[in-house]
Amino acid sequence: MAPSVHLIQPKWLEPFSQAYLPAGDDASRMALAVALSAEGARRNLGGPFGAAVFDDASGELVTAGCNLVFDSGASLAHAEMVTLSFAQQREGEPDLSSRAWTLYSSSEPCAMCTAALPWSGIRRVVCGARNEDVQRIGFDEGSKPAAWVESLISRGIGVTRDVGRADAVAVLERYGAQGGRLY
Amino acid sequence: MAPSVHLIQPKWLEPFSQAYLPAGDDASRMALAVALSAEGARRNLGGPFGAAVFDDASGELVTAGCNLVFDSGASLAHAEMVTLSFAQQREGEPDLSSRAWTLYSSSEPCAMCTAALPWSGIRRVVCGARNEDVQRIGFDEGSKPAAWVESLISRGIGVTRDVGRADAVAVLERYGAQGGRLY
Repeated sequence: MAPSVHLIQPKWLEPFSQAYLPAGDDASRMALAVALSAEGARRNLGGPFGAAVFDDASGELVTAGCNLVFDSGASLAHAEMVTLSFAQQREGEPDLSSRAWTLYSSSEPCAMCTAALPWSGIRRVVCGARNEDVQRIGFDEGSKPAAWVESLISRGIGVTRDVGRADAVAVLERYGAQGGRLY
Repeated sequence: MAPSVHLIQPKWLEPFSQAYLPAGDDASRMALAVALSAEGARRNLGGPFGAAVFDDASGELVTAGCNLVFDSGASLAHAEMVTLSFAQQREGEPDLSSRAWTLYSSSEPCAMCTAALPWSGIRRVVCGARNEDVQRIGFDEGSKPAAWVESLISRGIGVTRDVGRADAVAVLERYGAQGGRLY
């Protein structure tokens, strides 16, 4: 059989996400991403990372996801990659730059996901926990340029940090304390 | 229906690749990656980029792939990401670090794929065309750290460059001259 990799939104995720709507501001949208970080890890689908894409104007939830590294068996299946891919699938094209959409990620993106943002066409990213919070529980964030925020901004991608950071960190620390699998 | 993204090895790719075996050295293994870069683009599956994973000791072709950005509709579907994911699927786990395997990529990896290499566990990467060759035909390689080679080496990943570069560049230039789609 031909090799293949499938990133599939878990069935529980859509109704779970709907429970967080309507979400009018960055903090409440981030609350969904953080809730997904906890739920995805609890279900052992991947590490404690969640993400969601919202339409800036309407406030509509475009799509959401969580880390699926264990579920998919693919190391690329970080929450941001998964969620941006779902948004692209919904739109039927790999470039989202004509949409005024924002990605909410429970943690700042790792080196791979940071570099993936411009390729996706997403216009803005809002982050919860900081990279150092993620590293503190044992995850590697990769060789990320020190000026990653400035680099994204220079490419026309807005960056907002520390939204819901305390809640996001609480999920990370619980995962760490429970000896959650690192990868 | 739940959102999903599928990276599937095209049916022609396995028999196409077998025609390049046995491939005993870096140059002949790279010839496969370069051939895949041309064939994937010719079939309009994605940009002109191909990759293959070989077992260092046995010389066995583990798996191969090409850029599937158009085919999958996902901006993450670069040849390296696709091919490493196929290798992980074959092994049933997202970490390949216990295998002495090498990734052959028709071009040096972009910022995203460079950062993805450590997450995959691959032990060595061999590159054909240089990033500047890719940029010359209009592709963006992202905000890649200047010391990306040293960074990979410090993580235990061997890097060999300029293997089959002229052939890889010829494919890129043909794509550029034909007005191939950029993304």
